[in-house]
Amino acid sequence: MINPETRSDEQAVLEASQAFYAAIQTLDTERMERLWLQDERSRCVHPGWDVLEGWEEIRQSWANIFRNTKRMQVRVSQLSVQVVGDLAWACCVEDITYASEGGFGTALVGATNIFLRLNGRWLMVQHHASQLPSSEDSKFPVQ
Amino acid sequence: MINPETRSDEQAVLEASQAFYAAIQTLDTERMERLWLQDERSRCVHPGWDVLEGWEEIRQSWANIFRNTKRMQVRVSQLSVQVVGDLAWACCVEDITYASEGGFGTALVGATNIFLRLNGRWLMVQHHASQLPSSEDSKFPVQ
Repeated sequence: MINPETRSDEQAVLEASQAFYAAIQTLDTERMERLWLQDERSRCVHPGWDVLEGWEEIRQSWANIFRNTKRMQVRVSQLSVQVVGDLAWACCVEDITYASEGGFGTALVGATNIFLRLNGRWLMVQHHASQLPSSEDSKFPVQ
Repeated sequence: MINPETRSDEQAVLEASQAFYAAIQTLDTERMERLWLQDERSRCVHPGWDVLEGWEEIRQSWANIFRNTKRMQVRVSQLSVQVVGDLAWACCVEDITYASEGGFGTALVGATNIFLRLNGRWLMVQHHASQLPSSEDSKFPVQ
């Protein structure tokens, strides 16, 4: 357990990143909603989707993905986090295994995540994820 | 002509973004090199490529792309730019037309660009570009 008063900014961003992937793995829309900056500045690109602009489109997309998915597991690797003032950016590889009505699938995805510190909380403002060439499945996730 | 002393931070980032796409369109490796933070923190994901980590891999990738490309035109749309302190992030759609040894091609790409202000200059620290579903060509660019 890290003491909130002594943890570094980088550690706080790592925790925000972990919370994001935990929300995905639990398919929890409300949990996901609490992690985002809920305004027009937010952007999201899911693998194989068009660019989503603003919180309402983004909120709807996660609700759709979670509704159409039975289980999802994400293993994060090659994670790098950089903090400059009240903004942080991360890059990582997501190794995703999922189950939907159509069966099981896997996807290897590269992700850029950007977080903004607002009132002491690190909120996601941009998520850009796209399939890597070594990925087996080109149809993830269900839109 | 914008007066450098009165231009806003956002305007400066827009100019850094324009310089990035100008470097691509002129296939100018040296120009591209001057735009980046040249250290281990930089990351780059070209459409359909694996994640590139650190400046050396990124520099090599642009040199390869420019060497294998005869012409490239990029029309940028849906551009949003946000500045927080010394960090800025952008999202846009790139409508790319290119010519290589293999012929002509087009690609519609979603891009996340992150810039860090260092000694008064906005340098690119992360570029993540991936094909959008409406894109016709899934083989861009040549690796």
